[in-house]
Amino acid sequence: MFSGAQLSIYPMSDNFVGIILGALSTLDPYRDHLRIETDDISTLIVGPPEQLFPAMRDLFVAASGGGIHCVLSAAVSRGCPGEPDDPACTPSEGVGNDRPLAERIVGAREAVANSAITGRPVAAQFSLYPLGGAHHMDEIYGCIDFLKASGVFDRSKNFCTKLRGDAGPVFATLAEAFLRFGAPDGHVALDVTVSANSPSAA
Amino acid sequence: MFSGAQLSIYPMSDNFVGIILGALSTLDPYRDHLRIETDDISTLIVGPPEQLFPAMRDLFVAASGGGIHCVLSAAVSRGCPGEPDDPACTPSEGVGNDRPLAERIVGAREAVANSAITGRPVAAQFSLYPLGGAHHMDEIYGCIDFLKASGVFDRSKNFCTKLRGDAGPVFATLAEAFLRFGAPDGHVALDVTVSANSPSAA
Repeated sequence: MFSGAQLSIYPMSDNFVGIILGALSTLDPYRDHLRIETDDISTLIVGPPEQLFPAMRDLFVAASGGGIHCVLSAAVSRGCPGEPDDPACTPSEGVGNDRPLAERIVGAREAVANSAITGRPVAAQFSLYPLGGAHHMDEIYGCIDFLKASGVFDRSKNFCTKLRGDAGPVFATLAEAFLRFGAPDGHVALDVTVSANSPSAA
Repeated sequence: MFSGAQLSIYPMSDNFVGIILGALSTLDPYRDHLRIETDDISTLIVGPPEQLFPAMRDLFVAASGGGIHCVLSAAVSRGCPGEPDDPACTPSEGVGNDRPLAERIVGAREAVANSAITGRPVAAQFSLYPLGGAHHMDEIYGCIDFLKASGVFDRSKNFCTKLRGDAGPVFATLAEAFLRFGAPDGHVALDVTVSANSPSAA
């Protein structure tokens, strides 16, 4: 299993470089477990799938802390057959995605209910892509059942689902969607946008 | 067939609202064919699949025209089974994706070679997700063959492919990847980031 994300932070500010550099220290607690590489478009993080969303949450909460409109965009992937197997990506404990769909929905709801509150309101939208299997819409519809009961469901949009709430349960909901749906060893991709401090937020 | 995109423009500037509003008139020539709706996270465009990338190209070239670091991020989709069939999304002419893989690669290369130059250098990275079929990696590898011969291929990255060049052939390459690969009536999603004027560009 190979898992990781290509992520970018977009502060809508003349000081975007300073804001990004100022937030990077929030990744320090994850550096022992994540490989991190940056180029001019995105930062790659590779590591255990359950650490990806907490790392992105902490980075985004820091980057958006000054009240500037700020967006995180990421392409998250696990089990991509074109990538090498990597022991660094082994989950530190089972993520429970080998259970029947109904049980996974319950487990995902519990995980979100137990997530820590950050104090940062955000809006997010994402698309989940379970690849290469014949049942991809079953997994998507199961995931949507979970999302509607997550407490941060906002609405369904064309091509994606929109969430709104505190960054804690929102990132936890994204993590559960990514970890628990799609085949356990299958190729799953998730494309996400998270926004804070938007002047056009409802 | 339903086709469209959820797109966002991120100008890294205190004047991000003005820059976005100033670029919107570039969509006017497309408004007869595209349905356009905006909320606080993204703008939805729905219409014929071959018009999506030209519309995004024109919007992005305008938004990045002042030299400000600017990013376009979009989730593009065709054939999503959860969406209604929509006559507005019928291609105005066949896009040729019912041909053998080798012929499609040739057609895609010709389309890129004939694309107009805009004068705006960009970098882009994207992931292509042909969903629900058993041959999704064949289509991805075929698409990669095309990309390497596109003239704007930069490099393969984890989870995505990076392009670099003039916005004209770069957006044409993205359009060809989206239109010609994956099953003709299948569900294909494409997640893309396009960047201009980055201070950290190579």
